[in-house]
Amino acid sequence: MFGRLMTRLRECSHSWSAYRRYTSVTAEDVTAFRAIVGPNGVQTDGLDAYNTDWLKTHTGHSELVLRPKSTEEVSSVMSYMNERGLKCVIQSGNTSLVAGSVPIDNEIVLLMGRMNAIESLDTASGILVTQSGSVLQTLEEYVNERGFIMPYDLGAKGSCLIGGNLATNAGGLRFIRYGSLHGSVLGVEVVLPDGQVLDLMSQMRKDNTGYDLKQLFIGSEGTLGVITKVSILCPLKLKHQTVALLSLKSYDHLLKIYDKIRRQLSEYLTSFEMMDALSLEAVVKNLEQSHPLGSHNEFYAMIELSANDKDHMESRLSQVIEELMSEQLISDGTYANDDNHNRFLKLKSYRERIAEGLLRDGYSYKYDISLPLNVFYEIVEVMRERLKDTDCLKVVGYGHIGDCNLHLNITSKAFDKRIKTTIEPFLYEYVAKHKGSISAEHGLGLMKNSYLKYSKPVEAIALMKQIKKLFDPKNTLNPNKVLPND
Amino acid sequence: MFGRLMTRLRECSHSWSAYRRYTSVTAEDVTAFRAIVGPNGVQTDGLDAYNTDWLKTHTGHSELVLRPKSTEEVSSVMSYMNERGLKCVIQSGNTSLVAGSVPIDNEIVLLMGRMNAIESLDTASGILVTQSGSVLQTLEEYVNERGFIMPYDLGAKGSCLIGGNLATNAGGLRFIRYGSLHGSVLGVEVVLPDGQVLDLMSQMRKDNTGYDLKQLFIGSEGTLGVITKVSILCPLKLKHQTVALLSLKSYDHLLKIYDKIRRQLSEYLTSFEMMDALSLEAVVKNLEQSHPLGSHNEFYAMIELSANDKDHMESRLSQVIEELMSEQLISDGTYANDDNHNRFLKLKSYRERIAEGLLRDGYSYKYDISLPLNVFYEIVEVMRERLKDTDCLKVVGYGHIGDCNLHLNITSKAFDKRIKTTIEPFLYEYVAKHKGSISAEHGLGLMKNSYLKYSKPVEAIALMKQIKKLFDPKNTLNPNKVLPND
Repeated sequence: MFGRLMTRLRECSHSWSAYRRYTSVTAEDVTAFRAIVGPNGVQTDGLDAYNTDWLKTHTGHSELVLRPKSTEEVSSVMSYMNERGLKCVIQSGNTSLVAGSVPIDNEIVLLMGRMNAIESLDTASGILVTQSGSVLQTLEEYVNERGFIMPYDLGAKGSCLIGGNLATNAGGLRFIRYGSLHGSVLGVEVVLPDGQVLDLMSQMRKDNTGYDLKQLFIGSEGTLGVITKVSILCPLKLKHQTVALLSLKSYDHLLKIYDKIRRQLSEYLTSFEMMDALSLEAVVKNLEQSHPLGSHNEFYAMIELSANDKDHMESRLSQVIEELMSEQLISDGTYANDDNHNRFLKLKSYRERIAEGLLRDGYSYKYDISLPLNVFYEIVEVMRERLKDTDCLKVVGYGHIGDCNLHLNITSKAFDKRIKTTIEPFLYEYVAKHKGSISAEHGLGLMKNSYLKYSKPVEAIALMKQIKKLFDPKNTLNPNKVLPND
Repeated sequence: MFGRLMTRLRECSHSWSAYRRYTSVTAEDVTAFRAIVGPNGVQTDGLDAYNTDWLKTHTGHSELVLRPKSTEEVSSVMSYMNERGLKCVIQSGNTSLVAGSVPIDNEIVLLMGRMNAIESLDTASGILVTQSGSVLQTLEEYVNERGFIMPYDLGAKGSCLIGGNLATNAGGLRFIRYGSLHGSVLGVEVVLPDGQVLDLMSQMRKDNTGYDLKQLFIGSEGTLGVITKVSILCPLKLKHQTVALLSLKSYDHLLKIYDKIRRQLSEYLTSFEMMDALSLEAVVKNLEQSHPLGSHNEFYAMIELSANDKDHMESRLSQVIEELMSEQLISDGTYANDDNHNRFLKLKSYRERIAEGLLRDGYSYKYDISLPLNVFYEIVEVMRERLKDTDCLKVVGYGHIGDCNLHLNITSKAFDKRIKTTIEPFLYEYVAKHKGSISAEHGLGLMKNSYLKYSKPVEAIALMKQIKKLFDPKNTLNPNKVLPND
């Protein structure tokens, strides 16, 4: 036991001085939970997948997984746990990149995937009501068939659940057009740590009656309550989508075309993504894909446009691209529209599969930061220089330039502590110096909670701790994550 | 004194059982405040305007107005008040329609208008940073000149301040396109009731580091802290605006054209407003304006479109209008674009001046509710029937149909208690039955706090009270507003 604990101490990035084994689950507890969620809702064997995070960097020791089907079951489960002093981690798609949804110790895993009933979609307003365990891609398809789209889109859409998306305030690819979940989520139902059901299920776009409590749960990473139901505003699906991939010589050119494209095509622009040469190489070489353009280049921009009037949109796009070509701001390009759906998806996949490609190198050190555009790419070059004498394989930068959100990824054959300590806390200090965010969209989870001070002042952290204490006085939910341990 | 108190008891809608006169301001206090904000920052005479709300329904008895110029001054003021047990109401433009920014008793008025420095506008990202006392219209003009627009627009823009807009989670006319302030505000600086400065001034669109505390202040109506600085994302200004006024025979037709227009013109649609015949009459007759169309009709829709490519936008609009005419969904219409700016503003003014026109009747009972579209207008007819034997002059409905937000207004020559008790609580019960919101955008303030239970469950109200206690344990800020008195 002690050996296992020590291994964890070495693995984990944050201080374990506060570490202790949580209250153990007894046979009586398992019997009680079986009575609540039914025999099919309880699992005690073969829990490896639930104990391991997506990046495979953290291994928990949970001995119990519960699969509730209803808000009432979640309420009874939480009430029981709270009474008994048991700890719990809520797991949706378990796609967290900061080990936010994996047990640290022996927390009970509350698996939300069975709560996947879609309740309604109002086709007059576009308001979708669903249980929180619905898979994002299932919801996307459901609303697509009815003339709408989800207001956000993620690479993990095939496995992530909407409840987890809210809990982590997921950003993703449509953010530049449809904004944050803080704007598009209209209502939530939440089970509080003591089992109380908090019904904030508004289906109205506007409701100024008292403090907007639902906002606290969006981005709280499962530490304040269990989101069980969601009401969310879906934009109308525009009839036509076009995606274009452009290649460029420099970051400076990228900034210039970003400015021109958003000014001239703002009615249509749904996403504006950038990748550097090594990001694309991670897909082309590591995943054995053909290069999407004839020749390599230093930078790539992938822009997506949507409109009802395809001809007009594409003629506007052509005009703009011709201008950019004649000004020598772009070197090459290609585009696809969804008339040829396979080609369209294939072209998009060069951006979506970067993370997957990078993992093939072995180990991926993932950072997801916000930085002002004038220093947005500089950090990639600074980091290459810092890491040049280590065994790192790639330092790549890609991301949502329209949102100032950079995914800085570094790979090596296997986890290498020297690489990590060369990156951190240097990177966080750099981000703090430029008033960026150390976690733009991934959250803090277990891997980044001790670095919160680089993005928030002490007064804010103190208030967050008081709020946690108010909502979860017994620290039942996702203990020792998000907020730093003292 | 007792007589004056009794008058207030009759005027005010909510229970005054908890009423007591707050700690009095002494000459020593005034001296101390003078030392903090300077002699020009203190006013003790001629305070009527600050003691009276916009609708002139509530009169407070404040004897002291403070005009801080900086966050440091606000911090010192709050710290002093908190220590002394003094009460305070933050006043921005004092345009609240629920008496949210007016003293109830002798609260000190903290006037924010001198804190009106615009700090920066990043023209790459559209992020504006300003002190909270800037007038909305000034900001709109400032960002317009630099190629952007504010993400929201209100009738009160000439006098309301951005800090007050955030504190009340203002909605307004661009909501349908640019969404809620919960999405577009990126950062705030807040002075807490004990004088602590909470710096949450992110200038990044994405920041998932801990609980999103700024969201709590948006819509808290000045009860949790004093917003002193704001960072907000401004959309690009599209080059051309067109506004169209269409007349229709029935609410059913209105729903049909709403659906068609948003599906066919969604790339361009910036607002979709409705007015009934009596709403327009309040402008035409009470304000002596010419009728904007040749003939009267039952309903009017005012839609606003924006685009970079005017010709294409207007040809699309013409096509859609022709279709609606041939389907006999609309009877008449006119439009104006901002090439002829005066005509453009004139046409828009028929919607913007309704509230002003109604006030000319004498007294206006204002309700701002969210309702599902299938019962959205029904309440106006129900209310006309209920009030037909009273001395009411008009029952009108207008508002943001795109956001399910109805402004239900009733007028009479002077305030008439019988009319009020015929409306309330019946209206709130109706809204609760249809799961709407009793205050879509105006907030609760003093006039609606006791009705919160119609839109929020007891568990939520209990949590709100705990949050108020956490942030403001001595109940210094805007006491006895927003949350119901026990």
